[in-house]
Amino acid sequence: MAPAGPTDTARALRTEGSVVISVDAMGGDRGPGAVVAGMAESAAKNPDVRFIVHGPEAELKRLIGRRRELANRCVIRDAAGVVTMEDKPSQIVRKGEGTSMWSTLESVRIGEATAAVSCGNTGALMALSMLRLRKLPGVNRPAIAVLWPSRNPGGFNVMLDVGADIRADAEDLLQYALMGASYARNGLDLSRPRIGLMNVGTEEHKGRAELKQANDLIAANTERGGYDYIGFVEGSDLPSDRVDVIVTDGFTGNIAIKTGEGTAKLVGDFLKQAFENSVMSKFAALLAMTSLKRLQKRIDPRRVNGGVFLGLNGTVIKSHGSADATGVSSAIKLAFQLAQSGFQERLAARLAQSVAAADGAGGPGGDGTQPVAPNGQKETKGAT
Amino acid sequence: MAPAGPTDTARALRTEGSVVISVDAMGGDRGPGAVVAGMAESAAKNPDVRFIVHGPEAELKRLIGRRRELANRCVIRDAAGVVTMEDKPSQIVRKGEGTSMWSTLESVRIGEATAAVSCGNTGALMALSMLRLRKLPGVNRPAIAVLWPSRNPGGFNVMLDVGADIRADAEDLLQYALMGASYARNGLDLSRPRIGLMNVGTEEHKGRAELKQANDLIAANTERGGYDYIGFVEGSDLPSDRVDVIVTDGFTGNIAIKTGEGTAKLVGDFLKQAFENSVMSKFAALLAMTSLKRLQKRIDPRRVNGGVFLGLNGTVIKSHGSADATGVSSAIKLAFQLAQSGFQERLAARLAQSVAAADGAGGPGGDGTQPVAPNGQKETKGAT
Repeated sequence: MAPAGPTDTARALRTEGSVVISVDAMGGDRGPGAVVAGMAESAAKNPDVRFIVHGPEAELKRLIGRRRELANRCVIRDAAGVVTMEDKPSQIVRKGEGTSMWSTLESVRIGEATAAVSCGNTGALMALSMLRLRKLPGVNRPAIAVLWPSRNPGGFNVMLDVGADIRADAEDLLQYALMGASYARNGLDLSRPRIGLMNVGTEEHKGRAELKQANDLIAANTERGGYDYIGFVEGSDLPSDRVDVIVTDGFTGNIAIKTGEGTAKLVGDFLKQAFENSVMSKFAALLAMTSLKRLQKRIDPRRVNGGVFLGLNGTVIKSHGSADATGVSSAIKLAFQLAQSGFQERLAARLAQSVAAADGAGGPGGDGTQPVAPNGQKETKGAT
Repeated sequence: MAPAGPTDTARALRTEGSVVISVDAMGGDRGPGAVVAGMAESAAKNPDVRFIVHGPEAELKRLIGRRRELANRCVIRDAAGVVTMEDKPSQIVRKGEGTSMWSTLESVRIGEATAAVSCGNTGALMALSMLRLRKLPGVNRPAIAVLWPSRNPGGFNVMLDVGADIRADAEDLLQYALMGASYARNGLDLSRPRIGLMNVGTEEHKGRAELKQANDLIAANTERGGYDYIGFVEGSDLPSDRVDVIVTDGFTGNIAIKTGEGTAKLVGDFLKQAFENSVMSKFAALLAMTSLKRLQKRIDPRRVNGGVFLGLNGTVIKSHGSADATGVSSAIKLAFQLAQSGFQERLAARLAQSVAAADGAGGPGGDGTQPVAPNGQKETKGAT
């Protein structure tokens, strides 16, 4: 069903300085209307963004036709099938061809778009991404990384994995450290990111066996990965300014990120109630409007919408299933920034480098653990 | 070192309607001054609370002598040793006799106090509690339960385990459900608490193998445990009003609780900054003072200070290591409430009941799992 290569219309999207993003219009909780509205919001702010959008052609034509911002900046790729939130990843891997999600990834695979954005089923998107884009050499388990509001000067920390895989052994956690450092270097512009490993305490004797092992492995690879290692961190360090990248398994990371979001939302609701409490406080809220709006913007989860899939041959951004236009637009912005910075090529190069180094050194040191990339693959994709 | 039974001075503390709390003055980050200040705060508010306080006698005498609220309501038990935050639980189990923590638990063990409060090292406190107070019949792994601010009418949810043990198998999770339900019934006054099991998604096929097994086990024991089971919940449900008790392993629970606290603190700091932003917003903050103070009180982690150790022959409350007087006083209040409600006896009775039921039924159902209490002990402690 998918075309063998870029079509002429897709080729025509690429102009000097433009970046093409492949967008899955289907599978989000709010339907294609919210996705197209998000695309329009992005297009209005950013003259260099172009889209290939995937879903049922007639409906998309109608939605896009209403948006003047999207005229001549958008190619529609017809896909009748939709991956629902209830579909199991294993089903989609077998029968997903013909869905908008499959088609969205295909545009990245064949190179007509630089990055993909989808609001759909996370598990299915990761399974399809692994099947169609393939893992980068040296990567065992890809990870999903998110930005989280923090006290750091840049305003954010990176956490990974937040749900690609519920398991991670010590070596996977080392790979997360390498990939997270690369993401922080390119996405947050930090020359030497500080890595922390999530645990239930900062003392070295605490936590599960694989965490103690990962603690040693990550500490032994600081030079190779171009990061500093600060050791164990706790849940309370998620917004801390003593760390830039928090490494954890996908089960723990998923619980942490959702707990953080839920708590921020609770406090926000309490705040709203507090200001609706009396005439006096309503008047005060009116006066403080600018400050309150700034606060709301700082803690708005839609502003950090977009989990990046790391460890694949291609950039894929998972937007929240419930994302509205603002959320979709923020995920597109992230995709655009990463595509423009050449992040994918740099990450591949960095991982290839550590594979080569691991091959040369015969493993990351005499600590009885496996070398970084036991398969010894050296193939890279346009490394700079 | 510890006395063999209540001393005469300790006996004299007990008057009609009074409740004696055993307090560890040492081991917290702020030293015995903060603990004694918290005791004084409690004593000022509550005429029925009495204390046996453990630590270096000379220092405690000096601190308590300054507090008029504590006159004639406090017995000092001299203990020179201090368990530090750096001590490993295994060391303390071997060499902890003579520490204030050991002595604090001893007062509960011999019955001269109804509940214990300590700000000290959590791991050491749990290890000593298990050694000295012993586990309740039918309990494999004791758990630490905390109250968390929620949208429920009562204002709180219960979560357990938040760090007693980093492991929990399906049967442990069932015990947590039983114990959590009992705590919610007595502590939050809910006749039929709703239990949720923490996972990375609400779909039945998601998560680790032991979670799927626990899902079946907890669902099969709703009548026995006197709870409703709502299935899997996510991190975002921590403050939700669709659940009362959230069951999880101690690793995940610890990360979740610290992430929640860290996030609430971050938003609080952002809020403060927002109101310091301009003359206008400072004026607005002044006007909104009452509302803001109410909000601060609602999200103040000191107000929910106190993890309850469940599954032991005796009530032990772990206060935050960094608790100030307000935090300590809130932990004492929780200890007092639980002691007064006869929670310990009811929990023991409930667990003994399920042990008996499990013995009778030969396990919780034909799902291939172990019965609730394989050891079949039936001994209870003053069950009502």
